[in-house]
Amino acid sequence: MTHSSYVPTPDDKFTFGLWTVGQTGRDPFGEPTRAPLSAPYIAQKLGELGAYGINLHDNDLVPIDASAAEHDRIVAEFRQALSDHGLVVPMATTNLFSDPAFKDGAFTSADARVRAYALQKTMRSMDLGHELGAQTYVFWGGREGAEVDAGGKLLDAIGWFRDSLNFLADYSEAQGYGYRFALEPKPNEPRGDIFFPTAGSMLGFIATLERPERFGVNPEFAHDTMSGLNFAHAVAQVIDAGKLFHIDLNDQKPGRFDQDLRFGSENIKTAFFLVKLLEDTGYAGPKHFDAHALRTEDEAGVWAFARGCMRTYLILREKARQFNADPEIQAALAAYRVEDAELADLTRGFSPQKAEALRDRTFDRAELGGRGPGLEHLDQLTVDLLLGTR
Amino acid sequence: MTHSSYVPTPDDKFTFGLWTVGQTGRDPFGEPTRAPLSAPYIAQKLGELGAYGINLHDNDLVPIDASAAEHDRIVAEFRQALSDHGLVVPMATTNLFSDPAFKDGAFTSADARVRAYALQKTMRSMDLGHELGAQTYVFWGGREGAEVDAGGKLLDAIGWFRDSLNFLADYSEAQGYGYRFALEPKPNEPRGDIFFPTAGSMLGFIATLERPERFGVNPEFAHDTMSGLNFAHAVAQVIDAGKLFHIDLNDQKPGRFDQDLRFGSENIKTAFFLVKLLEDTGYAGPKHFDAHALRTEDEAGVWAFARGCMRTYLILREKARQFNADPEIQAALAAYRVEDAELADLTRGFSPQKAEALRDRTFDRAELGGRGPGLEHLDQLTVDLLLGTR
Amino acid sequence: MTHSSYVPTPDDKFTFGLWTVGQTGRDPFGEPTRAPLSAPYIAQKLGELGAYGINLHDNDLVPIDASAAEHDRIVAEFRQALSDHGLVVPMATTNLFSDPAFKDGAFTSADARVRAYALQKTMRSMDLGHELGAQTYVFWGGREGAEVDAGGKLLDAIGWFRDSLNFLADYSEAQGYGYRFALEPKPNEPRGDIFFPTAGSMLGFIATLERPERFGVNPEFAHDTMSGLNFAHAVAQVIDAGKLFHIDLNDQKPGRFDQDLRFGSENIKTAFFLVKLLEDTGYAGPKHFDAHALRTEDEAGVWAFARGCMRTYLILREKARQFNADPEIQAALAAYRVEDAELADLTRGFSPQKAEALRDRTFDRAELGGRGPGLEHLDQLTVDLLLGTR
Amino acid sequence: MTHSSYVPTPDDKFTFGLWTVGQTGRDPFGEPTRAPLSAPYIAQKLGELGAYGINLHDNDLVPIDASAAEHDRIVAEFRQALSDHGLVVPMATTNLFSDPAFKDGAFTSADARVRAYALQKTMRSMDLGHELGAQTYVFWGGREGAEVDAGGKLLDAIGWFRDSLNFLADYSEAQGYGYRFALEPKPNEPRGDIFFPTAGSMLGFIATLERPERFGVNPEFAHDTMSGLNFAHAVAQVIDAGKLFHIDLNDQKPGRFDQDLRFGSENIKTAFFLVKLLEDTGYAGPKHFDAHALRTEDEAGVWAFARGCMRTYLILREKARQFNADPEIQAALAAYRVEDAELADLTRGFSPQKAEALRDRTFDRAELGGRGPGLEHLDQLTVDLLLGTR
Repeated sequence: MTHSSYVPTPDDKFTFGLWTVGQTGRDPFGEPTRAPLSAPYIAQKLGELGAYGINLHDNDLVPIDASAAEHDRIVAEFRQALSDHGLVVPMATTNLFSDPAFKDGAFTSADARVRAYALQKTMRSMDLGHELGAQTYVFWGGREGAEVDAGGKLLDAIGWFRDSLNFLADYSEAQGYGYRFALEPKPNEPRGDIFFPTAGSMLGFIATLERPERFGVNPEFAHDTMSGLNFAHAVAQVIDAGKLFHIDLNDQKPGRFDQDLRFGSENIKTAFFLVKLLEDTGYAGPKHFDAHALRTEDEAGVWAFARGCMRTYLILREKARQFNADPEIQAALAAYRVEDAELADLTRGFSPQKAEALRDRTFDRAELGGRGPGLEHLDQLTVDLLLGTR
Repeated sequence: MTHSSYVPTPDDKFTFGLWTVGQTGRDPFGEPTRAPLSAPYIAQKLGELGAYGINLHDNDLVPIDASAAEHDRIVAEFRQALSDHGLVVPMATTNLFSDPAFKDGAFTSADARVRAYALQKTMRSMDLGHELGAQTYVFWGGREGAEVDAGGKLLDAIGWFRDSLNFLADYSEAQGYGYRFALEPKPNEPRGDIFFPTAGSMLGFIATLERPERFGVNPEFAHDTMSGLNFAHAVAQVIDAGKLFHIDLNDQKPGRFDQDLRFGSENIKTAFFLVKLLEDTGYAGPKHFDAHALRTEDEAGVWAFARGCMRTYLILREKARQFNADPEIQAALAAYRVEDAELADLTRGFSPQKAEALRDRTFDRAELGGRGPGLEHLDQLTVDLLLGTR
Repeated sequence: MTHSSYVPTPDDKFTFGLWTVGQTGRDPFGEPTRAPLSAPYIAQKLGELGAYGINLHDNDLVPIDASAAEHDRIVAEFRQALSDHGLVVPMATTNLFSDPAFKDGAFTSADARVRAYALQKTMRSMDLGHELGAQTYVFWGGREGAEVDAGGKLLDAIGWFRDSLNFLADYSEAQGYGYRFALEPKPNEPRGDIFFPTAGSMLGFIATLERPERFGVNPEFAHDTMSGLNFAHAVAQVIDAGKLFHIDLNDQKPGRFDQDLRFGSENIKTAFFLVKLLEDTGYAGPKHFDAHALRTEDEAGVWAFARGCMRTYLILREKARQFNADPEIQAALAAYRVEDAELADLTRGFSPQKAEALRDRTFDRAELGGRGPGLEHLDQLTVDLLLGTR
Repeated sequence: MTHSSYVPTPDDKFTFGLWTVGQTGRDPFGEPTRAPLSAPYIAQKLGELGAYGINLHDNDLVPIDASAAEHDRIVAEFRQALSDHGLVVPMATTNLFSDPAFKDGAFTSADARVRAYALQKTMRSMDLGHELGAQTYVFWGGREGAEVDAGGKLLDAIGWFRDSLNFLADYSEAQGYGYRFALEPKPNEPRGDIFFPTAGSMLGFIATLERPERFGVNPEFAHDTMSGLNFAHAVAQVIDAGKLFHIDLNDQKPGRFDQDLRFGSENIKTAFFLVKLLEDTGYAGPKHFDAHALRTEDEAGVWAFARGCMRTYLILREKARQFNADPEIQAALAAYRVEDAELADLTRGFSPQKAEALRDRTFDRAELGGRGPGLEHLDQLTVDLLLGTR
């Protein structure tokens, strides 16, 4: 494989959001540094770069106050641009966070009118997503949280959120949309604490829904990483549960504000293990870069950012293949494990006989504790692989 | 209520572990600063302080190398002490982390022999717990984790852990022990990353077990707090899922090593909301202080620590009652919420008619966004309540 | 002292920034939720609430594009409002972060023109501050940082920053302004990493300036707390160095985005130790609340927020006095320390004789290690004091 | 340069501590997993691996209770081993943290006897260090901190610490030892908060000492990283101040317990910028790996760990040279900066004329804000360089 191979094609299933490459650089302390880009122009540019699709919130495309005629015109133009540039819209979602109405939450607002409005807005956004061909519908409850726990709505909020998701899953069925819903956790920002802060929390919540089979997780690299959690571990649990419905790739330094950095730019090792996990388990859905160029950048920097996200993924994918093919690494992996067919049988699937056999077994603790698993060696081989020195 | 009311009785269901008040002050950088205390002596002291029970790991009581005769003698002496001092053993657990055999995990070790030994040790420890009357069995997988993700066992480890829990749940049934299992998450330490790092992760995992009804969560204040997560939020989700089987109370500064501080000594506000949540929802299980005195302290400091844990809980419990009875606070809470019976009906339980009615509804975004919820006011009232100035 | 005593007067020297109570609730994910408030109106309201002064960035008062005439009119109106409501402007500063020109830093921009423009803007802002009577000039280098260390400007940036401060200190002297400069550290946000991230970093940097006596620190509660550092410890070091020129009070959960919460609303215990430190050491400068109301709030919430900041400070000040007067607490403090006049003399101020005497001394390690300092007891007394139960 | 070049020689000045490769794997939750290694054996092994030197705490080599005869025998054996294997002892330090006597601090203990004993122990340890040829003396105040700020010793502690360092600097002069003292900061662990938590804090503190020229900093990668601070930034400030007297290299995930991971194993990018900074600025002191093998490892893993630390440094050093020689990267760096000789002159070194010229200058804010610095592009080039794909 040569370096030129790190140029993506739509088969790689890389997607961006309108809000990601379209981000203008506004932040809590400063004004925008870049002009807005139109949705058709974004489609053109992403098509040229080899992306597979574009995702959107309703209001990324259609202003919240647009008339029906404006809606139709905008959607038609965008569909034309998608068609012209060979892109699809695999995922859609609702903006339930920008408008002041949602300042204290949408589905979990203490104001019943806001909750109802959020439901209405989401139904309409689901209509739009369907119109554009989206099959995955993401819920990121960015304002579903609290700073003042004295408000006392915590248990109610969980219930309201569940009611809303149950309602919308039924709506999807009734309309024949067939959406798969992907719930996206985040620990904080913009709220002091956001409900369901981690990928695990979302898995736990899904188990309480009426149609759990319709719901999965949309884990985001930066979000679990903000809490210092290991994102590859989080995704592994989601995969184990059969719930990886979508994934958001970006990067982030732990323990600070939401940075949405270029994929692979910060936590190189975790990014590698993540790519390896996705590739080894055959994840076939979109790889969505929910990130944006640094505020310092002009438009050229935006496209450099977008190219970089995809390129680094492809580099790491090749390294994952190299890891799987490297004899010394594979030998280290084999040496790391001790298999024992008899014990494997004894410990899986209880029976009183197995329990008795296990209880009577003698184990040599000193031997077990003295064995060297070779993990420093294996890890150094991996670092060498990442640095290109093997 | 007078200050003397902050003295606990067994009815308050406060418990400690042998390993908590018995901790000797050894840490990664220093030697023990306190002599070990015998289990019967701990029982005597905790009885005098008004505790309800004592929890233990198998090897807190019986050394890992004890003979059967030693086992019997030790257990008999301890039962006598429990009886003498009016204490019970509501919860038991297994030490799967101290012995070098478990250095790379117990149920998730890459060595099949270690996994089998962990199962054996846990069965024996469940026998001991049953012997002592324990009804809750806790799993804290302190070594179930990794530093070197190159080891590649992540998905296998989840499977091995599931196999082990399924096996042990069947063992509990077969033996007639009737245990309720409480899984305790922790994000890291002693491993670089521990599998199932948060309370939410455990909820998600339980949904994949064969007997999910037998499994709940044992959330620990310090553990979710290490990752900077809001512990009261975590416990609320566990309660919502019907899975609060046990709880570990202590304190911790976010983003650092596991401190196991005296309950209520650090995050006073979160401790208050937690106590309020437990009391308001009628949690009836043990409140276990999984904490220890600072390493600076001598034995007198240990008992000051133990008294302080319970005292602060009782103070906060009284404040929770005061909060619920305070007219100004209750008025602020009422003002915070906007109820609307018609909308409540429309948004709960989907029907095409409801969906249509909701879609046709007009909402005044500006009004919704302009409403002041009074949360700064409510929060200041709470701070005043906590500080004793109302 | 009665509860009504928690109402401030100008003698308490509480100040707010125009940008704090005037904050409109815009955040990275949402639009403003509150209308802007005019500077004269803010002066009126803060006067009514008992504040001492108002601080400002140049562009909080005068738009960046204002003509000279507009400048004069705005300043005159504001001065009139200050006079009408009995307020002063003790501190001024420059906005070197909102305009896109500063997107990659001001004094540390890689663009020499930006560095020069920042110097020009600061001189003008110092003129404005002087015009309004400010005696302290704060530097918060919000954009002085980097995300891309490959840019390689790190050592240059430190030099450019030093050149700029040296220049501006000379300017202050030449103009006869007599400013005391207070450098405000912050670890990150809006930049990925901000140079001079902690109070200690600023102390270290001051030692390299040409007129170190003119420079001190403006530590901010939230900023060191974002990195999980103990803010009371940081301020103690600043006081020890004689460099507490100003202080910013607010609150913050560690390890997350810059929250600027109401003072005392989160880290109650650290807020108490901070107030105690300021009061015990006789800090006589302004106590500036660099915080803002939650985005959920309307204007009433803004004033509730402002009142709460001051009220909590006054409550904690009273508790500090109570701590100093509490016999049991003072007894615990006395017991904590072991004084020894002979050893104190031997260990302070080297001489060969002292060294020899010290080397020959015999110490009883076991006795030293066995002593119980009573810190759990003392800490529980403090928690009781904070909770109002003693 | 070929891959075989990544084998170190003493000229590379890599050092280890006896306590690093000799660490036995004990942690707060478990027993040792490795047998202790003798100091002479460590010297032999490190010599074989190409290290330059060995550092030590007094009690790493000589037990705290050793007799004078034992001391002499141990030191003689160790000197022989050093000589046999071509190693030096460039740095020495004192263990002021393991013994229970130091449980509440050494130089900052509230017990005057402990403070005096700490001074005595350090003098003796300085004698030992001198005997072994050490020229740098490190102070890591691992127990100099607090959990209970109610103890109220904060300002006194700073003073006691200063008195002790002043005393010891004089002792070094009086004895003719000529030590350069390197102060090592750490934010927490084993204490809840350690005084002088960051590299910046130490710089600030040095400015208050009597012989500041004798004191510098020993920054440790893991320590500032624990607080989520950018270690390369911290070291740059230390270099700018002329205070990089020693450096401790290892690795660490932010926001968690002290991991002391293999250098370069976690934060690959920051490790690269650090190596580049050290090499570009000509740092000529020892590069000390203050890290240890994972607890999972046997002795073979220890040496794999040690080799890996050095190898990764050498790989990154080569990449730093490649970065400096890469035309595309150098072009991006040149494009990033805007130089302007006239403005550079105007902004450095105040004069009234310069101030006036600057004030009259017109800047085009839109142009300054619109410029694209190309940082995403430059950062991606760097990621490619690190991954070996350019």
